[in-house]
Amino acid sequence: MTDDDLRPGETTVAAAAPDDARLRFVGQIRTPFATRDACPRQGDPDGPECRIEVDAPWDAALDGVEAFARLEVLYWLDRARRDLVRQSPRADGTTRGTFALRSPMRPNPIGSAIVTLVRRDGAVLVVRGLDCLDGTPLLDIKPHRGDPAVRRRAEGRDT
Amino acid sequence: MTDDDLRPGETTVAAAAPDDARLRFVGQIRTPFATRDACPRQGDPDGPECRIEVDAPWDAALDGVEAFARLEVLYWLDRARRDLVRQSPRADGTTRGTFALRSPMRPNPIGSAIVTLVRRDGAVLVVRGLDCLDGTPLLDIKPHRGDPAVRRRAEGRDT
Repeated sequence: MTDDDLRPGETTVAAAAPDDARLRFVGQIRTPFATRDACPRQGDPDGPECRIEVDAPWDAALDGVEAFARLEVLYWLDRARRDLVRQSPRADGTTRGTFALRSPMRPNPIGSAIVTLVRRDGAVLVVRGLDCLDGTPLLDIKPHRGDPAVRRRAEGRDT
Repeated sequence: MTDDDLRPGETTVAAAAPDDARLRFVGQIRTPFATRDACPRQGDPDGPECRIEVDAPWDAALDGVEAFARLEVLYWLDRARRDLVRQSPRADGTTRGTFALRSPMRPNPIGSAIVTLVRRDGAVLVVRGLDCLDGTPLLDIKPHRGDPAVRRRAEGRDT
């Protein structure tokens, strides 16, 4: 389940098994990043093309997504440990709270990224801006809240 | 579980029960919005103060969060139906795919918002910019990816 060893000063908690809500994977993300060391620290809008593959029957939910230049993508960091409350990103004994970090190790290891849409090929979105491991399970795709079309809708100017 | 009736043209799918991964709620969000009709269509950075209440033992994960002016908040839209692939936001017979909308009704009803941090009171963050119902379960808090301190860390300039 996890490949994360504790570092000096890091703090874990013993919490009940997580079962307040349940997720379904709706596809998978294909990136050039095969290992965690190969993943960039943050997604780069000029980074390599990646593929978001949406599984049936959820591919029908992609209709209209081409209208947006930027999308928000949520995914499941399935290899991350979930019990850390203080982490030491630089492994130097200094720690910060998990909610003050964008580390993949969190009580609910949900990753979020803003990607630029290069093109849609059927049930596949080709995008730039991801930093996750190849094979990462997909949870959701939404129009980016800053997209002009989203703003027009929110202000009732959408026609 | 749901209070959403189908509208003309909307399409649902029959999918297996979601059980690919499990979530734990780490707190709750208190807003002035008691009903869905009272919720704004999008969070306003100048909107009313809301409270993000973090439950023990996860409150220890807040340490250092005061360094960020803006935070990304993830929460669970626990009243939303999850089987819609095409939706009709204006109930006029025209529909769009769920992934082309920021509707709460999605296969994994995870809401995301960017909030401005007003202050921290112990295990409570007072913030602006939320649009969710009072009592919404909290999933995660992360520094906003655009925050200057996050950029410094990503570029290795963090000291």
